[in-house]
Amino acid sequence: MKKKKKVNAAILIIGNEILSGRTQDKNVAFISNWLNLNCGITVLEVRIIPDVEKIIIKNIQDLSKKFDYVFSTGGIGPTHDDITAKSIAKAFKVKYGFHKEAYKILENYYGKNKFNDGRKKMAKMPLISKLIYNPSSAAPGFITKNVLSLPGVPSILNSMIENCKKYLIRGSKVHSKTINLFTVESNISKQLGLIQNKYKKFVDIGSYPFFRLGKIGVSVVSRSTSKTKLKNVHKELIKAVNLKGIKILKI
Amino acid sequence: MKKKKKVNAAILIIGNEILSGRTQDKNVAFISNWLNLNCGITVLEVRIIPDVEKIIIKNIQDLSKKFDYVFSTGGIGPTHDDITAKSIAKAFKVKYGFHKEAYKILENYYGKNKFNDGRKKMAKMPLISKLIYNPSSAAPGFITKNVLSLPGVPSILNSMIENCKKYLIRGSKVHSKTINLFTVESNISKQLGLIQNKYKKFVDIGSYPFFRLGKIGVSVVSRSTSKTKLKNVHKELIKAVNLKGIKILKI
Repeated sequence: MKKKKKVNAAILIIGNEILSGRTQDKNVAFISNWLNLNCGITVLEVRIIPDVEKIIIKNIQDLSKKFDYVFSTGGIGPTHDDITAKSIAKAFKVKYGFHKEAYKILENYYGKNKFNDGRKKMAKMPLISKLIYNPSSAAPGFITKNVLSLPGVPSILNSMIENCKKYLIRGSKVHSKTINLFTVESNISKQLGLIQNKYKKFVDIGSYPFFRLGKIGVSVVSRSTSKTKLKNVHKELIKAVNLKGIKILKI
Repeated sequence: MKKKKKVNAAILIIGNEILSGRTQDKNVAFISNWLNLNCGITVLEVRIIPDVEKIIIKNIQDLSKKFDYVFSTGGIGPTHDDITAKSIAKAFKVKYGFHKEAYKILENYYGKNKFNDGRKKMAKMPLISKLIYNPSSAAPGFITKNVLSLPGVPSILNSMIENCKKYLIRGSKVHSKTINLFTVESNISKQLGLIQNKYKKFVDIGSYPFFRLGKIGVSVVSRSTSKTKLKNVHKELIKAVNLKGIKILKI
């Protein structure tokens, strides 16, 4: 794996059940955290779209041009609404059919007698794809050019994510430091703005309100690829907060 | 409110904290469910993007053209990283400044002595916007053309959502019926495909694996604006499942 300065990715969640609000998505936070911590890759955009072929094709084409990697989730199972693999083949205008290695894996897993048409469908994908092995339920994910396709079920996706690593170029990890305060954002917005402006090229400062024990609080999160710059910002933030007489929470 | 056949919307989540995986998004499922149940509006796309002006502008322009409504969340607070209001004004090329009504609401809420610059910032928005009142923390959301801007904190957003209703045209509610089975998808994929194909113009059938009590199951969800068509599909699904000897779970 080569080391590169900034590597980015998009996540494409494919599934009517997430869009309709029936199912709470958990894959965005998981993939984004994993990519940053393990590969130094920053997720810059997420899209959630329905299981509609022409919409999947358009989004795969757009996102694969715009970002270093695209992680798609959902739509690679055995049912009629699983159309991700075919749509990706169409998006890249490459051949779609039974992938020999995937076919073998699934035939071994189910046994010849139980290897029905639905299960065989999971071996159909772009023929140029390489496999992302699945220790949970055999049916592999796959990488097609810079698009990595994973299943939608979080427990299965989570079990496969380490097998994506070998296909990814690593970037610089984004480090972060958080200060939690019992105050309202508008009490410290001026100070945060001044410090952010001073370090705007190196550090991103975000402020996020929370409620705890019936009180309003703010998490101030600084993020940077440079540990030194991050330390300096952290010091200045603490100084500014102390000057305002605001207590810093331990957790 | 006029009644229209199909009304759609997109959700634009603005915030580095969601993209980075630090914070688990809860607004997509909430807004999407609320829109369908209360307004008959279907969410067709979600995007999650960072707090970067040019990216917000581009997405507001794209989504507001493509969909009947856009719901943006996040970036309307008092700190330097709250740039949604200004970006929306730029996206629509309309004037940005102190909104008289919003200014009054906030001045009353904080009192003249405590109405500092950070708090005043929350009264700045496109001047053509109409307000979405906020019973939790006063700072209003706003609608600019077809874009409704709400805060990112779920509890505050949830308390404001009813105040969006008066700005929305209602569509037809999408009804759904679910059958839960202890089986694997590939056992019933053929049957689901046949029924989906027969009703493809009227009903969407989705199948979603789950784990319960250590067993693998499938939720088969049918969705339609027609209750009659939905009933027919439901009957056919039950018949097909019974023929395969699969037991239907009560919940």
